[in-house]
Amino acid sequence: MPKTLNDIDAALGGLSARAITSVFLVACGGSLSIMHPGKCFLDAYSSAVSCDVFNADEFVSRKPKRLGPSSLVILCSQTGNTRETVGAAKYAKAKGAYCIGMTLDPKSSLAQEVNAVVQYKASYATGFPIDAADSNYAVLYLLLAGLLRRTDGIDCLAKLMSSLERLQPAIDNAHLTFKDRFEAYAPRFQGASAIYTLAAGPCYGAAYSYSTCVLMEMQRFDSQAIHANEFFHGPFEVVDDKTCVIVLVGLDDTRRLTERALRFLERFASNDRILSLDAKELSLEEIEPEFAPYLVPLIFFDSLWKFAYKLAALRNLPMLEGRRYMKKINDY
Amino acid sequence: MPKTLNDIDAALGGLSARAITSVFLVACGGSLSIMHPGKCFLDAYSSAVSCDVFNADEFVSRKPKRLGPSSLVILCSQTGNTRETVGAAKYAKAKGAYCIGMTLDPKSSLAQEVNAVVQYKASYATGFPIDAADSNYAVLYLLLAGLLRRTDGIDCLAKLMSSLERLQPAIDNAHLTFKDRFEAYAPRFQGASAIYTLAAGPCYGAAYSYSTCVLMEMQRFDSQAIHANEFFHGPFEVVDDKTCVIVLVGLDDTRRLTERALRFLERFASNDRILSLDAKELSLEEIEPEFAPYLVPLIFFDSLWKFAYKLAALRNLPMLEGRRYMKKINDY
Repeated sequence: MPKTLNDIDAALGGLSARAITSVFLVACGGSLSIMHPGKCFLDAYSSAVSCDVFNADEFVSRKPKRLGPSSLVILCSQTGNTRETVGAAKYAKAKGAYCIGMTLDPKSSLAQEVNAVVQYKASYATGFPIDAADSNYAVLYLLLAGLLRRTDGIDCLAKLMSSLERLQPAIDNAHLTFKDRFEAYAPRFQGASAIYTLAAGPCYGAAYSYSTCVLMEMQRFDSQAIHANEFFHGPFEVVDDKTCVIVLVGLDDTRRLTERALRFLERFASNDRILSLDAKELSLEEIEPEFAPYLVPLIFFDSLWKFAYKLAALRNLPMLEGRRYMKKINDY
Repeated sequence: MPKTLNDIDAALGGLSARAITSVFLVACGGSLSIMHPGKCFLDAYSSAVSCDVFNADEFVSRKPKRLGPSSLVILCSQTGNTRETVGAAKYAKAKGAYCIGMTLDPKSSLAQEVNAVVQYKASYATGFPIDAADSNYAVLYLLLAGLLRRTDGIDCLAKLMSSLERLQPAIDNAHLTFKDRFEAYAPRFQGASAIYTLAAGPCYGAAYSYSTCVLMEMQRFDSQAIHANEFFHGPFEVVDDKTCVIVLVGLDDTRRLTERALRFLERFASNDRILSLDAKELSLEEIEPEFAPYLVPLIFFDSLWKFAYKLAALRNLPMLEGRRYMKKINDY
C-alpha cells in the first residue's frame, strides 16, 4: 500500500466506532479552495453525511450547532501554522469532533492540535516537481473516499487511488496543450483592468483560488471568481469588448452551465480576451470516467500557474516575491 | 395573527409528520444572497438539520444525494419565473422533497411547482415602500424559525415576528444616519476602477448581492464581495491608496473578522475610499438582541440602495433601465 493510503487508513482508523453524520471542511484561502470540490464529491456520493465548507475564522465565530462528537472536521494549511485554521482545530476538538489535519509539515501547530495528520506535498514549497497523487486535492479526495466506506458502504478508494496515480501525465500533457494559448493570451491580459475567472461545480474552487490567491495576491489584478450560472444574474452586465475572462469548462454535470456562459461571452465579448480551458482537450484516457470530473480542476489549476508566470514576466512583477503585505508585514 | 404568520403556518403545516433532516436553500442572484444569512440562522439554532445553499442550476446539476423525502427545499424568485429556480423546484419535488416557494407572485410558474407558496413584498417591484416585515429576508427567517419548532423544539417565531414588526423604523433611521456619508463618498467612488464589498457572517449575503446585482449589474463596476477573513489570504494584496471598499460591520460573532479587515484598510488604503457601515450606529433598541445580527444585513442592504442611486446620478447611468442584457435580450 502506498504511504498516502496508509496515512489515510490510519487517520480514519482513529474514528473507531464513531457514527459520523456531519463533515466540516475548514481552511483559509488556497487551502479553502480545494474544499469546494471536496464537497461536490461528498454531496454526490453520500446520503449519510452532510458537508459544510467554512473559512476557518468564520467557522469558529459562527459556532455551528451541529458540530460535535458525530462530526468529522478536515482542516488544511500548507505551513500548518495558519492562525485561524489552528484555532478552528482547537475549537472543533473542544466540541468533541474528530479532527484530521492536512499539511506539508507534520510537526506544525496544526498537526499538534488534531486527532490525526495526513501530510501532502506541494511543488512550490519544495521547489521540486511533485506527483499529483501526493497533492492536497488528492489527499482530500482519498480521505473522503475512505469515509464513504464507513458511512455509506461505498468502496471506491482503490479505484480512486489508481486514477490519482495516473494523473500526473495528464497534467504534463495539459501544459503542452495550453502552452501556445497562454503565450497568445498573456499580452492581451497583461494590462487588463480586471480579470474574471468563471466556473461551476468542482472547478469553482480552482477559479476562486486563481482569482484571489494568484491574480489578486500575486499580480494585483482586480478579480472575482464568478459562478457560471450566477453570471447571468448580475455579473454579466459588466461584459463588453474589453472584458477579460478565464473560463474553466469541466466534465461534470455543471458543464452545461459553463458552456452557456461561454456562448454568451463569445457573442458579447472579444474572443481574444476569453481564455477558455476545456476538459475535453485533456488526456484523461487513463482516469476512471467516474472520477475525471473531480480531477479536472487540479489539471486546470496546475496549468494556469504557467499563465500567471507569463503575466508576471510581462508585468515585471515577480509572483511570490512581489507581494507587499503577505509574509512582509506581520502585525495585522 | 398577521397574514404572513398564517402563510408560514400553512406552508409548514404541509410537512405533517415528515421528519426533516436536511434543508436546501435554492435560488439565483439577489434571491440567492438572502439564503446565506438564512443558513447562518439555521446553523446557529439547529442541531437537527443540515443546511445547504445552492445556486438553482448548480443544485439541479450536482444532484445532492441526500435530497429526498426528509428534505425541505426553500426556493425564492422575485417574479417566480426564474427558469433555473422553477427547474430546481421540479427536480426537488420529483425527488420527494417538500418544496416551499417564496415569490412576489403567487400565480407564477414557481408557485405552480411547489408544495406551498409564501408571498413576500419588494418595494422596487411595486414602486411603493413596503414594511420590512413583509420582505424576502423576513419571510425566510420566519419559515426557518417555524421549522425550528418542529425539528429542535425551539419556539422563537413570535419573538422574531415582533422584532421584524419593529424593523422598519430602524431602516428609516439608518437612511438618515448614512445620508451625509453617502453624499461624501459617491463622488470618490464614481470613477473607481473597481469597488469591493467586504463582510462576514450574516452580512456576507448582502455584500454579495450589492457587488453582483447592484454594482456590477446596474452600474457596470468591476467588483467582488470579499469575505472579511479570506481578505487576508489573497485579496488584500490589491489594496493601495486608490482601492474603494464598502465594509459592512455586523453585530454577530464574525464582527471581529470584519473589524480586523477594517483596521488593515484604515492603515493601508485611503480612508476617504473606505466606506464603512457599522451596525453599532443603527437604532436597534426595539429589536431582540438575539435576532439583531440577522436583521442588520436588511438594514445595510436597504440603505446601500440610496448610495447606488447617488452613483447612478453621478455616472449618468440609470439603475434598472441602464442594463444592457438583462430583460433586454432573451435568447441566452
